[in-house]
Order: sequence, then C-alpha cells, then structure tokens
Amino acid sequence: MKTLNEIHLSNLELDSLFHPRTIAVYGASENTKKIGYLQLQALLNGRFEGEIYPIHPSSKEIAGLPCYQSVKEVPNKVDLAILCVNINHVENCLIECGKSGVKAAIIFASGYSEIGEAGIKAQNRLKEIADRYNIRVIGPNCVGLLNTTNGLMGTFSPGLTNIPLGKRREVGFVTQSGAFGVLTYIAAAQHGLTFNYFVSVGNEVDVGFSDVIEYMLNDPNTTIASGYLEGEKNPGKLRELAKHALEINKPIVIMKSGRSSAGSRAAESHTGSLAGADKIYDGFFKQTGIVRADDYDDIISFSKLFLSNKLPAGRNTVIVTSSGGRGINEADRCESYGLNIHPLSDKVKSEIEKNIPSYASALNPIDLTAAASITHPELYIEPLKVLINDPETDIIIFSEFPMDWDENTPLLQEFVELCKSSDKLIFVTTFPLEGMSIPKGVQYLEDNGIPVITGNLNPIRSLAKLVEYSETYEKAKTQEQAHEREVNKQNIQPLLTRNQTLSESQSSEILSQYGIQTTIQAVADTETNAVKIANEIGYPVVLKIDSPDIPHKTEVDGIRLNITSDQELKEAFQEIYENAKEHCPSANIHGISVQQMLPEGVEVIVGVTNDPTFGPVIMFGLGGVFVEVFKDVSFRVAPITRQDAISMMEELRGHELLKGVRNKKAADKEAIIDVLLKVSALIQEYQDDIQEIDINPLIVYEKGITAADALIVTK
Amino acid sequence: MKTLNEIHLSNLELDSLFHPRTIAVYGASENTKKIGYLQLQALLNGRFEGEIYPIHPSSKEIAGLPCYQSVKEVPNKVDLAILCVNINHVENCLIECGKSGVKAAIIFASGYSEIGEAGIKAQNRLKEIADRYNIRVIGPNCVGLLNTTNGLMGTFSPGLTNIPLGKRREVGFVTQSGAFGVLTYIAAAQHGLTFNYFVSVGNEVDVGFSDVIEYMLNDPNTTIASGYLEGEKNPGKLRELAKHALEINKPIVIMKSGRSSAGSRAAESHTGSLAGADKIYDGFFKQTGIVRADDYDDIISFSKLFLSNKLPAGRNTVIVTSSGGRGINEADRCESYGLNIHPLSDKVKSEIEKNIPSYASALNPIDLTAAASITHPELYIEPLKVLINDPETDIIIFSEFPMDWDENTPLLQEFVELCKSSDKLIFVTTFPLEGMSIPKGVQYLEDNGIPVITGNLNPIRSLAKLVEYSETYEKAKTQEQAHEREVNKQNIQPLLTRNQTLSESQSSEILSQYGIQTTIQAVADTETNAVKIANEIGYPVVLKIDSPDIPHKTEVDGIRLNITSDQELKEAFQEIYENAKEHCPSANIHGISVQQMLPEGVEVIVGVTNDPTFGPVIMFGLGGVFVEVFKDVSFRVAPITRQDAISMMEELRGHELLKGVRNKKAADKEAIIDVLLKVSALIQEYQDDIQEIDINPLIVYEKGITAADALIVTK
Repeated sequence: MKTLNEIHLSNLELDSLFHPRTIAVYGASENTKKIGYLQLQALLNGRFEGEIYPIHPSSKEIAGLPCYQSVKEVPNKVDLAILCVNINHVENCLIECGKSGVKAAIIFASGYSEIGEAGIKAQNRLKEIADRYNIRVIGPNCVGLLNTTNGLMGTFSPGLTNIPLGKRREVGFVTQSGAFGVLTYIAAAQHGLTFNYFVSVGNEVDVGFSDVIEYMLNDPNTTIASGYLEGEKNPGKLRELAKHALEINKPIVIMKSGRSSAGSRAAESHTGSLAGADKIYDGFFKQTGIVRADDYDDIISFSKLFLSNKLPAGRNTVIVTSSGGRGINEADRCESYGLNIHPLSDKVKSEIEKNIPSYASALNPIDLTAAASITHPELYIEPLKVLINDPETDIIIFSEFPMDWDENTPLLQEFVELCKSSDKLIFVTTFPLEGMSIPKGVQYLEDNGIPVITGNLNPIRSLAKLVEYSETYEKAKTQEQAHEREVNKQNIQPLLTRNQTLSESQSSEILSQYGIQTTIQAVADTETNAVKIANEIGYPVVLKIDSPDIPHKTEVDGIRLNITSDQELKEAFQEIYENAKEHCPSANIHGISVQQMLPEGVEVIVGVTNDPTFGPVIMFGLGGVFVEVFKDVSFRVAPITRQDAISMMEELRGHELLKGVRNKKAADKEAIIDVLLKVSALIQEYQDDIQEIDINPLIVYEKGITAADALIVTK
Repeated sequence: MKTLNEIHLSNLELDSLFHPRTIAVYGASENTKKIGYLQLQALLNGRFEGEIYPIHPSSKEIAGLPCYQSVKEVPNKVDLAILCVNINHVENCLIECGKSGVKAAIIFASGYSEIGEAGIKAQNRLKEIADRYNIRVIGPNCVGLLNTTNGLMGTFSPGLTNIPLGKRREVGFVTQSGAFGVLTYIAAAQHGLTFNYFVSVGNEVDVGFSDVIEYMLNDPNTTIASGYLEGEKNPGKLRELAKHALEINKPIVIMKSGRSSAGSRAAESHTGSLAGADKIYDGFFKQTGIVRADDYDDIISFSKLFLSNKLPAGRNTVIVTSSGGRGINEADRCESYGLNIHPLSDKVKSEIEKNIPSYASALNPIDLTAAASITHPELYIEPLKVLINDPETDIIIFSEFPMDWDENTPLLQEFVELCKSSDKLIFVTTFPLEGMSIPKGVQYLEDNGIPVITGNLNPIRSLAKLVEYSETYEKAKTQEQAHEREVNKQNIQPLLTRNQTLSESQSSEILSQYGIQTTIQAVADTETNAVKIANEIGYPVVLKIDSPDIPHKTEVDGIRLNITSDQELKEAFQEIYENAKEHCPSANIHGISVQQMLPEGVEVIVGVTNDPTFGPVIMFGLGGVFVEVFKDVSFRVAPITRQDAISMMEELRGHELLKGVRNKKAADKEAIIDVLLKVSALIQEYQDDIQEIDINPLIVYEKGITAADALIVTK
C-alpha cells in the first residue's frame, strides 16, 4: 500500500478536480444550444462555491460574468479548466492551460480512441500535453464530473443538472459509460440517494477508473466508493485499493458489464478455453472483497443498507408483513439468495403472540394481516419490541409499511426509537414510490438510519451482498493476524525452454521442484528399457507418448492405462509409437513415459492461464465430465491466499464430491490447498516465463494428492 | 375438454359475478369508516352500468339511493350481492340471498378457514348454503372483484378504486393473495396496463383460481389470463384449461410463490426426497405451456409484449441504443436469458453504416451514441429501415428512446409507421417512468401496438418467456397432428400386493410386463441354486439380497458386483446372507438374486412419486453423483407426452452427457423416451395401486437400455 505521503499527494493532485477554488469554462456561450451554455448554467444553478471565469474569443460578459479571451488573462490562478470546445480546439486550449499553470481539466469532446486509429493518435497527443504540463485530465469523450457538496456541476448533461439533491451525500460514483452513469445518478436520486461525487471518466486519457476510486477511499466524506466498469486497465492498483478499503471498512461496489463477452476469447488448452473473462472478474471481486453489483439498483440498495451503519452479524432474517403473499415472496427471495428465514424460538413466538390478534401469524414471516395496514397500525410495533431482544435474529425486514405516516406520527416515532436502540440491521421495503418526491415518513426513517427500499430495487439481493461483505470484512480482520505460509522460490529457470509446450515429463519435473507430488515415471526410448522401468516401478503401469509436439495425448491415442505384464507393455509400447508416428509424423518424440498406475481417487484439475487484463489466473475444478460438461470451475487472480484456495473449493457446485459421497472417502482438502498455493507461488515467480499450466487430472486421496498429468507452456 | 354447452353454462353462471345487471350491497353505510361505505362509493365512482340497491336494516336512503331492509324487498331480480357485513351476519344474509334467487355473492369477511378448526366449520356451512341455493360465491376473506369495463368495482380497497383506468383493458388477473394482488394491479396500472378483470378469490369456498382462469379464457374480450397462485386445488382442471388456452393462443401467465418451501416434505425414497413441490410446479408449467412469471413485473411486461400481437419467429435479437453501456447491459441480459444477439450480415451492416455517422457503431448492439438522444434523433430511424427487411432478425429492441417526443413528432410518426409495416416484434425500453402519468409519446407508441417497457420491469426476462411461449405454441400446433404412440395396458394387478415395498425381483417383473428391459435374473434360495443360475446366465454376475423389508440394499452391504467364478460366488452368497441377517434380523428374505453383470453405459434414473397436489409425478435424471450432488433432475406430471420426455432430457444441466463425452458413445435417447412413456402409462393405469417407482440405475447404451435395479412401493 502507499505511504501516507503518497496518498496525500495523490489526493492533492485530484483535489484540483474535485475541490477547485477557481474554474475557467472554455467555450462558454449564451447560445442555449451550445454545451458551453449548458455547462456555465449548471455551475451557476449549482451555486458553485468558487470563482467562475468564462473564456470566449470575443464576448466581454456572459451570463453576468466578466469574460476572458484566454485563461492567461484571468486575474487569479485557475485550478480547473472545463473544455466545452470542438475537438479541433482542444489541444491548443490544453496547451494554453498548461502554460498558465492550470492544474486540472475536463474534456468533453469526442472523436478520440473510440473512433479508431486517427482518434488514438489525437488522444496520445493529449496525453503528451497533460504529462508535459502535469495537468490532471478527465475525459475526453465524457459527460463530466460533479461534486454535489460544493456546487461543482462540471457537466452539460441536463440529466444530471436538473435533479434535486438529496440530504445525505456520501456515496461516490465513477463510470466508464456516460449514459449509463447518468441513468444510475437519476435512479439513485429518485430513491433519495445523491452521489457526492459523480465522475464520467470517458476515454481515461489520464485519470482512470481506479484513480477515482482511490480518491474516494481517501476522502473522509465518502463512505462508499461505487462505479460502473466495462474493463479495468489497472487491476493491480484496484487490488491494492480493495485491500485498503477492507481495512478501513469502506466498501467498493462495482457493476461490471460485458458478461456475455465471456467465452469469446480463444485459447489453446482446455483450461484456457474455460476462462471467460467475466468469470475471472467474478473471482477477482470475490478475492478482493469488492462487492459486485448485478445492476445499478444493487449500487443504490446496497448503499442505502450500508449507510444504516449496522453490518448484520449473521444470516438469520425475520420478515414482518401485513401481506401474507408478500411475506412468502420475500421469504422465497431471501432463501434463494442464501439468507436464512429461521424458525422463531417458542419463547419469542409466544411473546409476540401475546400482543397480536389470533388471526395473525407469529411464524417467520410474521403476517400481521391487512388489519395492520388498514385498521391496526400499532401491530407493526409489537413484533419489533420482541425481536430486537432475540439473540437469534440478525436482520429484520418490514415489508409493506404504512406510507402515510410521517415524523409527527407517534407510532412511527416509537418505531424509530426501537430501531435506534438495536444493533440489528432493520429496514423497510415498500411499493415503488412515485417520481422524485420522497414521502415524509420515508425521509424521517432514512434520516434516522432506517433504510427504506422499494420493491423493484431488489433489496433482498443487495441485502445478501451486504451480508457477504460483512463476512468478508470480518474474515479480513482475522486474516491480518493469520500468517500465510511462504512457498520458497525454486530455481527452475534451466527447465523453461522459451516458447514451448513442454512434455509431460518436463512439466512434471517443474511441479516436483515446487514440491507437488507427481507420478513416479521415466521416459523409455526402447521397449526393453520400458520393461526395465516398469519392473522397477512395479505393475500396474501407464504408458504415455512423450513429445512436446503432442500436447493432447489422447487425441493421438497415445495413452495406455493399467498395464499389468511385460507382454502387455511391449504391445502397448509398439501401438503408442505407431499411433504417434501416424498422427504426427513430424513430431519430435522423446520416447514413451512409463508411469505408476495411480489408485482411484477424486479427480480435480488445477490450471493457470494468462489473462490479458489480469495476468496469471488460477483455475480449480472437478475433473472429467464435471469440468467438460458442467464447467464447474472457479478462478482467482494470482497470487492467492489460503482463504482464496478454500473459497475456490467451496464455490464449486459439486464441492460435496470432495466431502466423499457414495461410500467414497473425503478428499484431502489440505493437500488441494497446498497444491493451489504452490502453483500460485510458481506462477508468481515465473510469470514472465510461463504462459500456461494445466494439471489434469490431479488425483486426491483421503491423505495426499498426486498430479497424474501435467502440461506447461512457456512464453 | 368441456363441450361447448358446458363452457357456455359455466360462463353463464359466472356472468352474474362479472356482468351483473343488478347489485345489492349488504351493509351499505354512510359511515366513512365502514367497508360498506367504501364499497358503495366504489360502485358509484366507478359508474357501474347497472342498478345498485343498498341493503340496510333501518336507513331509507344511502348516498342518494333508495335503501332496502332485505334483498327480498328489492323490486328487481338481484344478480349479485356484495356482503359488507360482519362474519356473524354472513350466513343469514347468504340464506336470504338464496331464497330470493340471487345468483352470485362476494363475501369480504374473514375469520374462516384461515384461522383453523372453527373457521373451517363456518366455511363449510357457507359452502353448504351456496350449494343449496346454487349461488356462485367469491371469498370469503377476499378483497373482491373488479370488471373495469362496466364499472363493477366490487371492492372496498382504496388501492384498487383510486387508480386511473388505462385505455387498453384485455388482460385478466386472479389472485390468491389480496394484498399482493392489489400491489400487482397498481403496478400494472402505473405501466399503462389496466386489468379488465381483477379477482381476489380469498378462501375459494366456491369459485376457485382455475374457475376464474376458465371464465377469462372463454371471455372474448380477454386476451391473456394471468394470476398469482400459492397452491392450485384443482391441477387437473388447470391442465385441461392450459391445453385449450394453447389451442386458442391465449397465454395463461401465473406467478407461483412458495419456492422456498421446496424440500420441506419428507419422503421415504431418494426420488421422493428430490421432488420439491416447486420443481413439480415448474415441470407442470413447462408441460402445459403455462408461462411462469418470476414476479409481478413479468406479468406486466409479458402482457405488454404479447399485446403487440407479434409473436417472435425466433431468438435473433438486435439492440439499438444511444448508450453504449446500456447496450452492453441489455446484450448481457439477452444472452443470459437465452436470446441470441446475432452478428449482423455484412449487407445489413453496410446499409446501416451508410446513414449513421462514423463514430456510431453498426455492430449488434447498434450504438448510435449520445448524438441520437441529444442532437440527432433522426438516427433512430435509420437502422430500423434496414432491420425490418433483414430476414435474420426476429426482434428489435430500442433501448433509451427519446421520451420528449409525442404523437405530433414527425420522426415518431415515421417510426410508428415503420414498426407497423413489419411483422417483427419491435419494442422500446426506457428509464423508469415517474408515478402514474404516462408520457404522450409512450401512449402514442402503445396505442399503435409498440410496447414501451421501463428498465426496472426486467423486459428482457419477459421477452425470453414470450419467445418460449411462441415456441411452445408452435410445437402444440404441430403436435396436434402428431400421433402419440399408445402403450397398452397390462394386467399387473396380481403382482401389486397392497401397501408394500416390493422386492427388486417383484418390481422388475412389473416393469418387464410393461416392456421395459430388466436384467436377466433369478432368485436363489441356496448357494447351489445360485451357482446353477449363475452358470445359466454366464459370468460375470451380480448378487443382491432380495427382501421386501430391505429397500436400500447397499445400506446392509447386500450387493456384490462383477463376480467371475463359482468360488467367488459362493463366498459372496454367504457374506450377503450374513450381512442381511446381522443388519435386519427380522427381515423376510426371499433369497439372493443372481443377475447378469451389465456392461458399462450412461447411468440415468427414472422415478415416480405421488404428489399431494398433482398425483403421480415422473422424474428423470442422470444417475450417481449427478442426482445426489448436483440434483440434476427434471419433473413432469403424469401422463407425459413424447415431447415432455424429450424436454425432460434437454432440461438437464448435464444433458450433454447423453450425447457422449470423453470418447463415450451417445446414449440411445429413443430408448429413454420409450421407458419414460411406458412408466407414464404404467402409473397412469395403476395410480390407485402404486405409490412410488424408482428405477435406479437405468443403464443406457448406444442401442438399448436396461433397468439395473428397481423399487416399487404400493399403496
């Protein structure tokens, strides 16, 4: 992680963007159709706290402000320049800013890297100017930047500027899509959540997605750093930031799109072809504790729940409702997202029953019936009084709450006081609200830290994400103390011939060096030699063709299993040799590998691929048809921790197979963890040399584990 | 299916509920706190087309209408009585109605079956009165009934009566939850969809969920029959109705809740324990073509799409958007729901490119960039002109459409005309609308058959359901001609000892009678006999304990596989016998079954359970760990068709295993279909005798199939 000084520096730099004292607006205009007009009005209407200087070649005054021909002429030092000019003028303006010591700029113009070759060149020139003059730039091809706490409405988009500001502004949002960002900003505002920072990073010529995340994490007034991501250019930085974020309990919540692009990349080996980019992002988010939002509504709902400042201590959830049907639906949803609708204890149940009518139900969900919503609203209070003292309950959801109550309703006041007295997460779900107006009762609840979330925002899905975040946060706290076992670096450089698919024996040798058990084997060049080796190893044995030119041995019928005698071996030796010669006449054949025939166990697979974004990525899965048909695999970006290895196993749909089913013994999980960590260390040390690792199958026993086959591809 | 006469009769009966000419309101009141007041006002405000007679013991006039002491005194024949009275008066009122020839009644009062024993008795008395006087009753414990086409607001709920009516009213809705129904009604209205019929059936003392579905299917003014279901009491009727609905192309769309109750029922055998009620509903909906809504928003979105009257011809979908980010997200969603975002042909692409700027993209999704939404709205028209003539495109989605257009906007007029000229499904998705007001442009589009669906309604999920419905509808049309092969009834009655778990040999005998291949086997009572049988069958053989008291043979270590010699057989015989005696000293042992050892193949499992709602249910799955760990099974309610059998296979996550993977040959799918249809016929004939069937494993070969073990439990 960065030192405090570095953080301070980085913050100082971006402060000119988020907290400028002076702003110059290039292209300011009184023509209502120009974005320079919209931008200037946005700053004026937003009541920007600092000075605004319109820049225009001829006008003396715009919108009542004195106008300047260039930023050079502005009497004060300009912190931020907003360039509302045509692409043809951008470079000159930026140079002018640089020469005048402007610290930061927003560039709206499009026509850069998004249009291809010519645009990339133009964008590179911007980069060069920004670097030369040390100007921090947002854009180009962006919607702009808002700081809703100081009136900095650095945008021309009416979708952003016409939205009333909510009270609480402590969630930041950065987006790689302008339009999707605007949509999210509006939707959040409709639900009473106004982002403190909104940043459309556009083409990221300078300030990138994770730079903004970093700024928000370091900003004392930001509680959550959220964003919409299409592709992270600096995952290493994001990983470091995520670690820091967990330490300081500021969630990073990201909606990552492009799931359907998964599987589009071709890759030579099996392992590779399974590594859809999206599954890697999934693994990356899991291992870093970044909350993955499924849609913009998750960003809103998660934020609202987190802002209550009550992380749930567990998954036990009680639903209190006036609609039986709604209760069943919420319960269905809770269970489908892994929350627990636990049966209430007899004690709790009977205490609740004392104060609710006989036709109401004190089971979980607690159904107060329509009586609560129509004639007896006081019923809502009764179960709450009991539940806040129930040690088995972690979360209480009030579904279908009366919306005509307000801050003067004594019952709502009592409800609020009870909620505030408890450290359980308590929130309200309601019917969708209409438009931009927040009912008074809702505002009163939210002011008092009780989130109110409308049904169509899928609050239960977000709740499940909050519970997961809470668990990850707790684990991270304990993990800090836990000592990760070190895997020592081994010198395998001599084994890594460049740009090769290594043979099985070469690959196995490398794994052996890292302490991974492989089959006893030796390569025989003649039949006689093979018999000798087989007798040394002891029957039954396996024969496999050994050639760097034949990575997929079954395809050339180059494997014979369970050979039990010299005679059988001789025949198999000839067959394999002939098959290989027939299928790959030009292959360089090292010989035939004679190996011990491993006893049966649970077959798993461990692989490493090189992802263009993330670098080396580790894969784990169940072998055979489970990987081929069910694609039951998990990914993590290297290096991984012990905890990552454990969750890679637990995440598999078929993870029960490792526990032993159908009279089989449980597989040695520690041995699997050990291999995963060793492979992680190996690829971490040699990521410049190794392109791919494929251990398939890796056979796990009740005690111990052995790689039955291995394939390493070098760079 | 019913005869036309019966349909006519059923319609006539319920017509008194939905189309009464005269209504008596028992408990009508001027006290604004009474439901009798709310109900009367609802009818008056709704401008009910017929006569309204308030019934009150003392008042002479209520709300300007002459009041009567009893329905007897009303000068006209009363079609419908609405009972806004306390539970204590319900029975007397209903009797009075009966005696006066009232044809139908709505009963709001609660305190019946929902409160237990005493309530059930009271409800049975209502049933008896209704039957005696032939009155059709809705309720008790319900919110009432609306017909929004004739002003029949038969409800006291302000949530229903205060909602403005939309133009198009041709979707009916029936609900088993009053509160959830009201929520759905409001949400639909917010999105411009007003149900023509809204029916809260409450405790269903007389008119049940499927009775209302039937009425709506037979009603010429209803296009879709939708509902919210917690548990169907008459699935047989619903199944018949669904068949009819497919014939007449009126979709039945049902949201069924209670998914989380799955797995709560205990059952003796494996097969049984896998049959969670919800999975059975899933299978039932699939085989009947009923559209399963995941939530109320599916009912709304599906209806809006279907009302466009353009069933998609395929899954090829094009997205046209002004927001690249939004386009990616819609594409992700389309692919995750099985729709195809197909690459456009070069011809189509170049035609589109001719008329859009270079910075826009004619890939699919087609990204017109923010230019379309801000400065160049005419861009929306260009791709449409090309796409409506593209034979490879079935569906066109316009995402993020300008919402400030209205019916006078020439571009929108042109858009509408282009859409109308095409038989492709074309619709618009937008940002969530505010409140109850529908923008003019949206209304104009919808009036012209172009659905507009807001993003938070998950239109893509509903689109996928429409595509599935379309496929099912087409299949049903062709299936009508297809001749289902008949499986003849066999007389197995003598084999069905009552209330028994039959032994494997007995069970196998029954399957054999139905033409299902079982292993060659015979039960030996002595070792000598066993050797004789084994030699007749030929080694290798299998030994299994044969006892009706030992249904799970592995649990007593009662199976030996792959026995290859007389000596081995003798030892195994003794061991199995001793194991059985040790584990189940009191078991009635028929002997030890000697069976041929089947060669390896793909193991599958076929089962039958008796569901309390649906009766016999057929299960299919992959055997071994796939059923145990992955729970990879599918269900259909008996009897099943050939098409059901096919989709039971295709629905499995691991269905690729049947195609042959890892050098295995493809499994004989026709043989699987054959067994499923035979089991279906068997259980259909003997459903009064057989409780459960479990064929596990059933081994499938490249050609042929053999049941390796079987268990039948009789009633």
